[in-house]
Amino acid sequence: MAAMLTMGEVAKHNTKEDCWVVLYGKAYDLSKFAKVHPGGAKLITNAAGMDATAAFDPIHPKDIMEKLLKPDIMKGVVDPATITEQYVVKAPAAHKPVQKKKSKSSSEDDEVIEEFKKPPLAAMLNTFDFESVAREVMEPQAWGYYSSGGDDEITLRDNHLAFQRITMRPRILVNVKDIDLRTSFLGAPASLPLYFTATALAKLAHKDGEVGIVRAAAKAGVTYMLPTLSSYTLDEMLEARAPGQLMFAQLYVNPERSRSEIYVKKLEAAGVKALFVTVDAPQLGRREKDMRSKFTQQGSDVQDGDEDEGAVDRSQGAARAISSYIDAGLCWDDVPWLQSITKMKVLLKGVQCGEDAVLAYKAGLKGCVLSNHGGRQLDTSRPGIEILPEVMEALREAGAKMADFEVFVDGGIRRGADIFKAVALGASGVGVGRPVLYALASYGDKGIVRMVHMLQDELQMVMRLSGTPTIASITDKHVLTTNLADHIVCLPTDNLSNRTYESLQPAARL
Amino acid sequence: MAAMLTMGEVAKHNTKEDCWVVLYGKAYDLSKFAKVHPGGAKLITNAAGMDATAAFDPIHPKDIMEKLLKPDIMKGVVDPATITEQYVVKAPAAHKPVQKKKSKSSSEDDEVIEEFKKPPLAAMLNTFDFESVAREVMEPQAWGYYSSGGDDEITLRDNHLAFQRITMRPRILVNVKDIDLRTSFLGAPASLPLYFTATALAKLAHKDGEVGIVRAAAKAGVTYMLPTLSSYTLDEMLEARAPGQLMFAQLYVNPERSRSEIYVKKLEAAGVKALFVTVDAPQLGRREKDMRSKFTQQGSDVQDGDEDEGAVDRSQGAARAISSYIDAGLCWDDVPWLQSITKMKVLLKGVQCGEDAVLAYKAGLKGCVLSNHGGRQLDTSRPGIEILPEVMEALREAGAKMADFEVFVDGGIRRGADIFKAVALGASGVGVGRPVLYALASYGDKGIVRMVHMLQDELQMVMRLSGTPTIASITDKHVLTTNLADHIVCLPTDNLSNRTYESLQPAARL
Amino acid sequence: MAAMLTMGEVAKHNTKEDCWVVLYGKAYDLSKFAKVHPGGAKLITNAAGMDATAAFDPIHPKDIMEKLLKPDIMKGVVDPATITEQYVVKAPAAHKPVQKKKSKSSSEDDEVIEEFKKPPLAAMLNTFDFESVAREVMEPQAWGYYSSGGDDEITLRDNHLAFQRITMRPRILVNVKDIDLRTSFLGAPASLPLYFTATALAKLAHKDGEVGIVRAAAKAGVTYMLPTLSSYTLDEMLEARAPGQLMFAQLYVNPERSRSEIYVKKLEAAGVKALFVTVDAPQLGRREKDMRSKFTQQGSDVQDGDEDEGAVDRSQGAARAISSYIDAGLCWDDVPWLQSITKMKVLLKGVQCGEDAVLAYKAGLKGCVLSNHGGRQLDTSRPGIEILPEVMEALREAGAKMADFEVFVDGGIRRGADIFKAVALGASGVGVGRPVLYALASYGDKGIVRMVHMLQDELQMVMRLSGTPTIASITDKHVLTTNLADHIVCLPTDNLSNRTYESLQPAARL
Amino acid sequence: MAAMLTMGEVAKHNTKEDCWVVLYGKAYDLSKFAKVHPGGAKLITNAAGMDATAAFDPIHPKDIMEKLLKPDIMKGVVDPATITEQYVVKAPAAHKPVQKKKSKSSSEDDEVIEEFKKPPLAAMLNTFDFESVAREVMEPQAWGYYSSGGDDEITLRDNHLAFQRITMRPRILVNVKDIDLRTSFLGAPASLPLYFTATALAKLAHKDGEVGIVRAAAKAGVTYMLPTLSSYTLDEMLEARAPGQLMFAQLYVNPERSRSEIYVKKLEAAGVKALFVTVDAPQLGRREKDMRSKFTQQGSDVQDGDEDEGAVDRSQGAARAISSYIDAGLCWDDVPWLQSITKMKVLLKGVQCGEDAVLAYKAGLKGCVLSNHGGRQLDTSRPGIEILPEVMEALREAGAKMADFEVFVDGGIRRGADIFKAVALGASGVGVGRPVLYALASYGDKGIVRMVHMLQDELQMVMRLSGTPTIASITDKHVLTTNLADHIVCLPTDNLSNRTYESLQPAARL
Repeated sequence: MAAMLTMGEVAKHNTKEDCWVVLYGKAYDLSKFAKVHPGGAKLITNAAGMDATAAFDPIHPKDIMEKLLKPDIMKGVVDPATITEQYVVKAPAAHKPVQKKKSKSSSEDDEVIEEFKKPPLAAMLNTFDFESVAREVMEPQAWGYYSSGGDDEITLRDNHLAFQRITMRPRILVNVKDIDLRTSFLGAPASLPLYFTATALAKLAHKDGEVGIVRAAAKAGVTYMLPTLSSYTLDEMLEARAPGQLMFAQLYVNPERSRSEIYVKKLEAAGVKALFVTVDAPQLGRREKDMRSKFTQQGSDVQDGDEDEGAVDRSQGAARAISSYIDAGLCWDDVPWLQSITKMKVLLKGVQCGEDAVLAYKAGLKGCVLSNHGGRQLDTSRPGIEILPEVMEALREAGAKMADFEVFVDGGIRRGADIFKAVALGASGVGVGRPVLYALASYGDKGIVRMVHMLQDELQMVMRLSGTPTIASITDKHVLTTNLADHIVCLPTDNLSNRTYESLQPAARL
Repeated sequence: MAAMLTMGEVAKHNTKEDCWVVLYGKAYDLSKFAKVHPGGAKLITNAAGMDATAAFDPIHPKDIMEKLLKPDIMKGVVDPATITEQYVVKAPAAHKPVQKKKSKSSSEDDEVIEEFKKPPLAAMLNTFDFESVAREVMEPQAWGYYSSGGDDEITLRDNHLAFQRITMRPRILVNVKDIDLRTSFLGAPASLPLYFTATALAKLAHKDGEVGIVRAAAKAGVTYMLPTLSSYTLDEMLEARAPGQLMFAQLYVNPERSRSEIYVKKLEAAGVKALFVTVDAPQLGRREKDMRSKFTQQGSDVQDGDEDEGAVDRSQGAARAISSYIDAGLCWDDVPWLQSITKMKVLLKGVQCGEDAVLAYKAGLKGCVLSNHGGRQLDTSRPGIEILPEVMEALREAGAKMADFEVFVDGGIRRGADIFKAVALGASGVGVGRPVLYALASYGDKGIVRMVHMLQDELQMVMRLSGTPTIASITDKHVLTTNLADHIVCLPTDNLSNRTYESLQPAARL
Repeated sequence: MAAMLTMGEVAKHNTKEDCWVVLYGKAYDLSKFAKVHPGGAKLITNAAGMDATAAFDPIHPKDIMEKLLKPDIMKGVVDPATITEQYVVKAPAAHKPVQKKKSKSSSEDDEVIEEFKKPPLAAMLNTFDFESVAREVMEPQAWGYYSSGGDDEITLRDNHLAFQRITMRPRILVNVKDIDLRTSFLGAPASLPLYFTATALAKLAHKDGEVGIVRAAAKAGVTYMLPTLSSYTLDEMLEARAPGQLMFAQLYVNPERSRSEIYVKKLEAAGVKALFVTVDAPQLGRREKDMRSKFTQQGSDVQDGDEDEGAVDRSQGAARAISSYIDAGLCWDDVPWLQSITKMKVLLKGVQCGEDAVLAYKAGLKGCVLSNHGGRQLDTSRPGIEILPEVMEALREAGAKMADFEVFVDGGIRRGADIFKAVALGASGVGVGRPVLYALASYGDKGIVRMVHMLQDELQMVMRLSGTPTIASITDKHVLTTNLADHIVCLPTDNLSNRTYESLQPAARL
Repeated sequence: MAAMLTMGEVAKHNTKEDCWVVLYGKAYDLSKFAKVHPGGAKLITNAAGMDATAAFDPIHPKDIMEKLLKPDIMKGVVDPATITEQYVVKAPAAHKPVQKKKSKSSSEDDEVIEEFKKPPLAAMLNTFDFESVAREVMEPQAWGYYSSGGDDEITLRDNHLAFQRITMRPRILVNVKDIDLRTSFLGAPASLPLYFTATALAKLAHKDGEVGIVRAAAKAGVTYMLPTLSSYTLDEMLEARAPGQLMFAQLYVNPERSRSEIYVKKLEAAGVKALFVTVDAPQLGRREKDMRSKFTQQGSDVQDGDEDEGAVDRSQGAARAISSYIDAGLCWDDVPWLQSITKMKVLLKGVQCGEDAVLAYKAGLKGCVLSNHGGRQLDTSRPGIEILPEVMEALREAGAKMADFEVFVDGGIRRGADIFKAVALGASGVGVGRPVLYALASYGDKGIVRMVHMLQDELQMVMRLSGTPTIASITDKHVLTTNLADHIVCLPTDNLSNRTYESLQPAARL
């Protein structure tokens, strides 16, 4: 049915206002979509009238156009013979895991260009090590996309810090010869109370992308929650599974419900155990580090002409962009529909208070993830771990049983002790996102496996030192949460007083 | 009636003690006023016996002498023919928005002189961006005047930090397809719960001064509170209005009440909707950054002779200065007089506790602004947002209804989330001051419009992510104020212990 | 009665073990005292067998030997004719108020030797300015002595910070045209609720020493508490008084009570109004900055021989040193004796809890100073201002009336607002110590006068902005003390997490 | 019975998989043990097939092989005549107390290589001084081993900071002429409420190792708790005792109980007064600074081949390692056995909550040490001093009397005031560990003696200034613990706001 076009015809649509782009042999009118492209408009408008497949392929899944955009923007199939070199956008330089680059460290004194030498995998001692390596080996734009958070990035960082607001209360003289980290949740056994949460566009980290994560999940004995916004297609991810490997899946509900139905049914058919519906992103958050990095690299779209109007467009752009593939109108009334289209367990991802957890329970859902979307959405919202006691209390009062309604936490988990703390406060398990991506970026799937082994090693030690030989033996008596809900902002310092104070110096400085 | 003078006669009064200055053809005896000139005495005494109109005009409104000072200091009209070049003080160099200057950044390592290249307007992602640009493009003295706060500037900074002491409590699965930011207060519709608060001497930021703000207010759909201490005359500001544009106005009550009456009636006649009487500045605060900057540039007045006496004069100077145009005797007994001279809604600007809000309500006033004057008056006083819960509770107990008595907050608002938090705690709207000036300084009225659009964009996102599609749907259940009233001062660090500790290093540093 | 000696005879006692020194024509055996000399042993043993008057005179009062030490160490009068040049220790170089020295600022980048140019007095905007100048113009050893505190200097700094833990609660629309700062305490009128507290050895700051402070006190209208450990004699200080100038006096009770009796009677005869008995220093605190500075400059006494034993001596030295002129045995039983030897009002300086204030009240004393000796004694003890509410509450419960028992606070007062806060919480007045010394060091008595005028200026502003026109109108409703008693220590930072975080940058940094 | 081997035969076992090493004339098969060697596998595998006695001797006690490992790894006695030079591993370079090395200070600006000049012992003013010197004079690996803590080292540092969360509440006018620091606990008199706690491998600090500590303990009048993991043999340590010198001893219970029985009986026979059974280390903590330092110096074991598997091995290695000489199965049921094998007082070292203290009391044990193993085991667990009030309260409720059950605290004690605070809250005494090692490393046993004298000096001052002339007079009224249990984590800073703020500058900077 699609029209057959020549590349010459496509090439006429080569302006910002009239912008056609060829991908995998099909021409798309992206004039409108460009403005809301998460990667920035320039990447698209620079390819107006061209074939951008080579640049598109390393990051996007092949089926993303079909999955996210309306059919009518597909303008026709392009005669391959007409796609000569002059019409082809060159792919970006290959991913360079080890390269000469400016050190991005925060320390003042080493702004020199130096060769970064990637340490061996065995040098990785904790999750932060992967992050420090990933920052060096990733493309700046990819790093900007992963590492950024909403607005002032206070919640982004607070997610991790919140775990330090919980202190340990270990018991002694318990036989801890044998420690058993195994557990199971949502019907899936787990080698520890951990799953890999859904994160978008894993190819930005490593060419293996989500396929690498699927493989690592199998080896590490944890379940992976497949993302809707993957850089590999669903089929590719499913094919990568080891025999019998269980999966979860995440879902952004599409404004066109039928698309979501098709997607969900495909997941169910593939044996996915549970469906996590993201409810904290009716609109994407403002990630300024990411915005700044795009602005710097692609330049402004509004250099010329009326800057004012440019401003207006941009301020309303984000919302429109999202409405094209995430349904901002999704509400409690839609839950029965969700339940009607699948027999998978359905959970909500992004619950942030006790009332909503109780509503989810009463609506017959099977659980929820306390999450603020990795600090990428609403800044100064609370870390999931901080919300956990409020939610467990509300559920208890509502009569919910852990067997019927499972609660998870994600955001800021970097240590085995963090997993312990979440379990102690009632979580069935925790999700990790960025650490998976950073391990993948640094060392591929082997990196992820080692990262999990380190968390296991740490958790095993914490359990042994806490006198809790099994997951079931971990209770809220093993932690203290006195300051968990405190958000302390220090009074600004008195610079005049500070400047006149001379610090004491140790003798070695004589 | 005024005497006709020659410039030769004026020129005889050319000492600090006997200091006449010609402005717009009239000679003024500024011997006494010089000591209390907010801009410093030197600027005046350096012009003793001269015509200073060219230097005066870029900053001051033409009518300021009449508005603020006693008539008897006007000594006569000067024959224009006698004002020859030798008697004319040269105007300061023109405002240079982009210039070579020493970087003022806080980072140690870049004390090099470098050309500052102003980023395009489209690069502005938040209100802080305007501030960072304004610091580079403004004259140091103007920057010193705007950016400074009282004493140790603790309240100045705390105003912003207080918002971070409030955490968000978003709700999910609410239909947030359509978000409506519109509201209205004091009878004026607003495109979001925001107004531009009165700030003095906008010409210091940009040649368009208050006129530029009036224009931006119209375009952005927010109301501007006209300042008493403007650099354009009231008439010039009113003329700049768009058709039907509503205004508020701020009032410093003059010790000569008749002057205030005339001014207020003029405002009312011009259709101004509400009058905000400033009650937190019976004396101007000590802004040391500003004082230091003036001292450095103009030198000391007391280099010679008895420094002691100089000290005494100075210590009492500020109070006398103010009493010349702000009535330090204004008290609750004067409220009926205020109400008698106008039919505009009268509000108090600068309320800082529940009792005073209740007194204002009982006195029949229409509302108040919880404000500490942008941290420029009494240091270590509380941020407006922190006072809000105390005031709302006191008003509730006194039986006040929001319809009768509206409460506003200013100070430290920099994010859409800040507006949300103020509304959640009961404010009808918030005022922004410095962000307007910095946007104006950086990009003129276009800058202000973009700044508002960014706040709208942020607020829209916050409302969508909080599950509150309308202003009315925002409640105090959507925020947590556990630590709002905490003013935490950290114990001094133990330097000896710190110095001997070696921090952990990530693997990429190997 | 005293033996007549020749210098040749004195010169035989020229070793550390047998150390005679000539001062003002008399020979003293300082072999034992050297070990406990607050200025370090080396200064004395280096002068063994010599006349050290020229070096001694610039710092010590002439009568200190008689006042503090036992008579039997005076070995005889030396024939002046025999004191030839070879026997005379040269005085240290004259005090150099402006000199080339290494900048001591905390900033990393300016470790260059540069000429320090003292700013004019008029450039002093606050008490910190004097401190910053004093650091540059004082001899390092003198600076070390004044600026140091006990142990880790936590209380030293906390004294100042504690005032920031109190927030202001200003009232509006009070007639504040006229502000009256005057008050009176202990029968002495004061131009503001302030006195100069006793501090030792003011000649270290400036050649005018205590005499300069006496003069400044008269000019500034505040009362000076004469120190026992002055560098001028009591007579010299009393002679410097202006006609009718009132004084307080501080007292270290001597183990030989008769010495204290003589001293107290002399004070009373001179018309001193009140006697403050120091009770927080039965032993001098360890001030490591001072110890380090002495060690560096004078070298160790124990370089040779058995270091161990040296260590033992030293560890017990300080206690013995003090017991030679401060009675560590002073206790409540001695209060009646104190009251019996004078009709002056007797107060305790150094009370640190409610119980002791009540005991003082019940013992018939007239008041107390809540003080930790400027942070120089017991580290991690509470600031005076923090203790104030506890003490006022305890006194109220004990039925004490402010007229009978007056409470003062010292330590950390640097701003007019600090005075306001102390008065609001019940203090009759506050004492300032270091600011007086720093102002003296920087600009002599004129500096002190200006410093007081600045505090007056600040206090006047704070009272005007708080709606409290008189000292009596200031109440505890005008401040908030929510966090006053909080000693918050932040959890150690997570360096691995911090190192991998990249901060957001403002646009001007693009 | 042991086989007689030639070195040639041993030399055949020279691979990682088949690794024999000769020590003191005996050949051991260390193939398995290498993987769990606390000092890292490389140190052992590099010596495969060699005689490593010279390298082994400087750190390990001669009897460690017998004490910790199974007999069957001893493969035979080696004919000394066959151990020619080619088979001998060279000893590491001699310990160099003063050497040219890279400054490790945290300050940015002095990354230059400079000669470190050790200050004289008399320059040591506090415990931190020893630490600062030790860092310079110790081998990096030894420093890494001592100074490191578990995971993020939050508890490591919090141990010290916790004491600053306690404020002093001194009393005045108490006769404090004579201060008596003496006390006694567990039947042993002490010159102050302090003992030297057990720490492993003191030879890493100084060649005198534990023998030096024994000697210093005698001179300083404190009791030393002999460590199980010493670098001298038990006999060597016991021989070093002064006549009548009392000792405590620490015990890691061996999985082979008979070994522990032999060891305990030997201690008892030697007159050791009390046995502290370590219960907080069923597995050694992860000390990343130490791990990193070993990795850097010895390289990775898993450079070649499958890194994944290497990762797995390592993650389970630590646990297995420990189980070889610490019984992870030790539990409350084993307490009667412990009590049956000795008449010494038995205490638990490493109790961390009230319940376990009560269990210990009810089990008939004689006391416990509240300890987190110097922050080396479970990170984010509470400092001992913080746990103390909870434990004392629980014991009081359980009816325990101090005479029957004594409570001690270790971790973070660096000041005399810290000892005072522990005693005030109910501790019989405190243990110091690292300060002893650092003093030993810096100046040998003389250093330790001086360190104790300094603590005595400080404690004496604190007692005098607190109005508590004897240990028994110190009560919980003399301290305040309001914030002791607060673990405050500051909200992340708002960098955009900070970057645009310009700090006030003092006048001396003009």
